[in-house]
Amino acid sequence: MSEIINKTDRRPLYKELGIETLQEHMIFIRKDSEVCVSEGFEALTRVRVKSDKGSLVASIQMVTSESLLKIGEAGLSNGAAQMLKVKEGDLLEISHLSDIKSLRHVRSKIYGKTLDFGAMTEIIQDIVKGRYAAVHLSAFITACAGDSLSTDEIIALTRAMVDAGDRLKWKKSVIADKHCVGGLPGNRTTPIVVAIVAAAGITIPKTSSRAITSPAGTADTMRVMTQVGLDLEEIQRIVYLHNGCIVSGENHLSPADDTLIRVERSLDIDSEGQMIASVLSKKTAAGSTHLIIDIPVGSTAKVRSESDAERLKYYFKVVGKELGFVLKVLITDGSQPIGRGIGPALEAHDVLAVLRNDPQAPGALKEKSIQLAGELLELVDQELKGKGTDAARRILESGEALDKFMAICMAQGGFTEPGIAKYTRNIYAEKSGTITEIDNRKLARIAKLAGAPSDPEAGVWFDAPLGRKVHKGDLLFVIHSQSTGELDYALNFLKTEDHVITIA
Amino acid sequence: MSEIINKTDRRPLYKELGIETLQEHMIFIRKDSEVCVSEGFEALTRVRVKSDKGSLVASIQMVTSESLLKIGEAGLSNGAAQMLKVKEGDLLEISHLSDIKSLRHVRSKIYGKTLDFGAMTEIIQDIVKGRYAAVHLSAFITACAGDSLSTDEIIALTRAMVDAGDRLKWKKSVIADKHCVGGLPGNRTTPIVVAIVAAAGITIPKTSSRAITSPAGTADTMRVMTQVGLDLEEIQRIVYLHNGCIVSGENHLSPADDTLIRVERSLDIDSEGQMIASVLSKKTAAGSTHLIIDIPVGSTAKVRSESDAERLKYYFKVVGKELGFVLKVLITDGSQPIGRGIGPALEAHDVLAVLRNDPQAPGALKEKSIQLAGELLELVDQELKGKGTDAARRILESGEALDKFMAICMAQGGFTEPGIAKYTRNIYAEKSGTITEIDNRKLARIAKLAGAPSDPEAGVWFDAPLGRKVHKGDLLFVIHSQSTGELDYALNFLKTEDHVITIA
Repeated sequence: MSEIINKTDRRPLYKELGIETLQEHMIFIRKDSEVCVSEGFEALTRVRVKSDKGSLVASIQMVTSESLLKIGEAGLSNGAAQMLKVKEGDLLEISHLSDIKSLRHVRSKIYGKTLDFGAMTEIIQDIVKGRYAAVHLSAFITACAGDSLSTDEIIALTRAMVDAGDRLKWKKSVIADKHCVGGLPGNRTTPIVVAIVAAAGITIPKTSSRAITSPAGTADTMRVMTQVGLDLEEIQRIVYLHNGCIVSGENHLSPADDTLIRVERSLDIDSEGQMIASVLSKKTAAGSTHLIIDIPVGSTAKVRSESDAERLKYYFKVVGKELGFVLKVLITDGSQPIGRGIGPALEAHDVLAVLRNDPQAPGALKEKSIQLAGELLELVDQELKGKGTDAARRILESGEALDKFMAICMAQGGFTEPGIAKYTRNIYAEKSGTITEIDNRKLARIAKLAGAPSDPEAGVWFDAPLGRKVHKGDLLFVIHSQSTGELDYALNFLKTEDHVITIA
Repeated sequence: MSEIINKTDRRPLYKELGIETLQEHMIFIRKDSEVCVSEGFEALTRVRVKSDKGSLVASIQMVTSESLLKIGEAGLSNGAAQMLKVKEGDLLEISHLSDIKSLRHVRSKIYGKTLDFGAMTEIIQDIVKGRYAAVHLSAFITACAGDSLSTDEIIALTRAMVDAGDRLKWKKSVIADKHCVGGLPGNRTTPIVVAIVAAAGITIPKTSSRAITSPAGTADTMRVMTQVGLDLEEIQRIVYLHNGCIVSGENHLSPADDTLIRVERSLDIDSEGQMIASVLSKKTAAGSTHLIIDIPVGSTAKVRSESDAERLKYYFKVVGKELGFVLKVLITDGSQPIGRGIGPALEAHDVLAVLRNDPQAPGALKEKSIQLAGELLELVDQELKGKGTDAARRILESGEALDKFMAICMAQGGFTEPGIAKYTRNIYAEKSGTITEIDNRKLARIAKLAGAPSDPEAGVWFDAPLGRKVHKGDLLFVIHSQSTGELDYALNFLKTEDHVITIA
C-alpha cells in the first residue's frame, strides 16, 4: 500500500526550474507521481495545465530524479510559468487534452480536398490557442505546400489568419507599406523608404521582424538607434504625429503566422501559399491599403529563379487584389548584398549614411531605396505617375527624409548613434581577377558566427561587389566582432569554406 | 570584459538531472553559456552532442537558472546520457548539425514526385540515426499519407525499413506468422494461435508489441505469465526447441518503424502505405514467409468500413507478393471485444481458459483463434486445404496447444498464473432491451483509466455482447483496479460518457 499512499500529487505544487523553451510549453513532473501513473501520461504527452490564473497546452517531461523535483511538485518552462502567472507553491492541474477537432480538416487536405474559410478558421484558431503540437503544424504546412493551395484557399487562409489577431485601424484611407520576401543580407531599405514616404505626407506604419535565421532584421537594425517594442496605442500616436514608424512586429497582429513560420523554417519547405497568406495577413492586420512587394532573385537568395519569382508575383497580385490591396510587385537583383553592412549596427551605419547624403554611402542601397519609395509614391498618388523616383530622390537628397527619420526615432524613444565593434579583421583577395559570384548565405553565416544579431555591433562590412576587378591583397570584407572567440569562429568557418567570394 | 571571461564552457561538463524524454533526446544548457551565445543556438535548436563514447542528435533546452545548472555544466535526458555513456563530469561537445540531405527527397514527395529505393533508403537511414526532428517525421508521413504512395513506393519503403534493422535467419524454409491490424480490445488470439501452430510442428517465432495507446498489447499479456524481453539469440534457441515463441518485438528488427508509428499516432493519420510497409518490414525482418493478416472492421475499430478494409487487403496482397510472402488477408468482425478481458491479466485469464478448454472460456475468442490458426495451417500446407480449422480445433481441444504454450513459457523463463485486481466494481444495465452497439474505444479508455496496462491486473471484464437481451440491473461489465483512486477515475469517466454500451 505504501506505493499508493505516496501517490498524493494529483494536483502538484509549482516549483521554479528556470528552463526556457520558447513557445513550446513544457511541464516537468515526476514519472512516479500519481497523476502520471493513473492518467497514463507518458513523456511528451501533450496535456492541459491549469492554474488559478490561466490554462495552456504543454508537453510532459518526465523527471526521474529526487534532486530535481519531489513527488508533489511540478516545474514549468519559463514561458508557461509566465502565462499561467504562477509562483512557487501554487497548485497546478493537469488533464488530458480533448480531441483537436480541426485536425479533421488537415486530414481532408492531405486527402486532396479543398478547405473553405470555415475550415481554415478552425485550424488557425486552434493553432493560436497552442493546441497544435509541432507534428500537427508540420502536417498542416506539408499538406498546404507545393502548389496544393488554390487561390481561394490562400485567400481563406489569409482571412483566417487576420481574424486570429489584433487589427490596426487608421483614420486615413491610404496606408502605405512595403515588404521584402527576404533572404538577402545587407538589404536594409526599409528605414530609408519609410523616411522618404512619411516625409512625402503618406501614412506608413511599418512593423518589422527581428532576425530569426539572418544576421539582422529591420527591427534589430532600428533597435540600435531607437526603441522598437511599442504597443499598438503608442504606434498609433506616433503615426498620427509623424505619418510613420518603424517598430517591431511582435504585437499580435498575426499570431498564427509566427508559429507557422518557425516550423516552416525547420522544414525548409517553400510553401508559396503559406508565404503569401503570411505576408498579406500581417499587412491586412496592420491596416495597409497600398503595398510594394520586393522579391530579390539570386542563386543564394530566398527566391532562386526568375520563374519562381514570376509565380510568386502572380499569386501576390491575384490574392492581394481579392483582399482589396493596391499592390505592385518588383522583382529585384538578389545576387549580392545591397548595402555594405551585414549585422544590426553595420546596417544602421549604411542607413544613416544614405539619409545623411554622405558621399561614401553605398550607392546601391540609396538607389534601391529611392526606387522602392518612388514606386510606393506612384502607387498612392496617380498624379505622380512616372515621377515617383524623382520625388523620392528630391526628398532624400534635400535632407527631408533624414529629418523625418530623426523625428520618428525621437518619438519612438530617442536616437542613439550606432556603435563599432571592439575587434575587426580584414579579409583580402587571395588572387587577382574579377569578382564573379558572391555567396550571400555564407556571408550571412560569417556575420552570425561573429556575433550578429545578439551582439548588434558584430557582422560583416562588405566591399567586393560583382564585376569589380581586384588585385591579390585587395580588401574584400571586414569581420566585426565583440569578442576574439567569436571572431575566431567566423575566421575558422571562412577557412573551411570555398567560394564565399569567387574571383575568376 | 567580465561577460566574456565567464563564457568558458565551450565544452560543458555533464551533470545528471534525471529527465526522461523517450526517444526525443534533449540537452539542457545555460542560455548564457559561451557555446550557445557564440554559436547562435536557441531553445529547441537541434544539435550534435558528442562524448568520448558516442554522438547523437538532441534538442537544446535553455536553462536560465543558476540552481539547475552552473555555467560550464550541461544536462542530458536519461536516454541520451545512456547512449553517450557519460558520467558526471565528463566532457560534452555541442556542434551545429549538418544539413539533413535526405529532406530533399521529402520535399520532392511533397511536390508529387515518386521516390525510388535509393531515396527511401536515405530517408529511413537518417530517421534511424535520429536526424529527423518530429516536424521532419511529420512532413514525411504527411507526404506519404492518403493514397500518395504507389505500390512500387510502398515496396521500396518496406525494403528500406528492413535494411535499417537487424534480421532474423532461420534454418527452416517455412516460417509462419500472423498480424492483426488492431484497434480492437480483448482480441488476444496470438498466444493461442502460436500454441496451436507450433504444436502442429510449424515454426512460428512471434514478436509482439507492448501497448502504446491501448490497454494491453500481446507482449503485455504474455508478460503477466512469462518473460518477453529476450534477445535474438535466445529467441532462436527457443524456437529451435519448441517451434515457437511469443516475445516482445523491441529488438531492433525495424527501428525506423517505432519512430514513425509514434508520430503517426499523434497525427491520427491513416497512412495506408506506411502501415503496410510497417507491418511487412517487421515480418520480413523476422524472417517470416507465410503470413495471415487479420483486419477487424467496425465503427469503433481501427478500420471502420468494409471498403477501407478491402483496399488495405489489396495492398497487403500486392506488396506482400512482391516481397515474396505467401499471404492471406482475413477481414473479421470488429464491432465488439472478442474475449471478455480487456487489460493484460484479464486477457491472460481468457487465453488460459481457452487453452485449458475451460467450459466458461469465451467462445468467440476460441473460435477466432481456431479460424486464424486453421488458415495459417492451410497456408503452409496445401494438403490441409479445407481441413485447417478441424486440425486446429483438434490440437486445441486435445490439450496439445496448452502443453506447447506451457513449454514455450517455461523456455522463456517460467510460467506464472495471472493475478486478480484488488478492487472491482460491477456495472449494471440501466434499462431493459437489446444490446445494439458497443463503443470499443470507450471500453478501452475505461480499462486504461482503471490502470491498464501499467497495473497488469487492471482493466475491464466485459460480458455484454451485441444482440444479448438484458433486463435493467443485469451485469454488463466489471471494472478491475489496483487502487480506489484509479477505480474512481474510470467511474467518473463512465458517468460523463453516453453510449459505452447502447441498449435499445
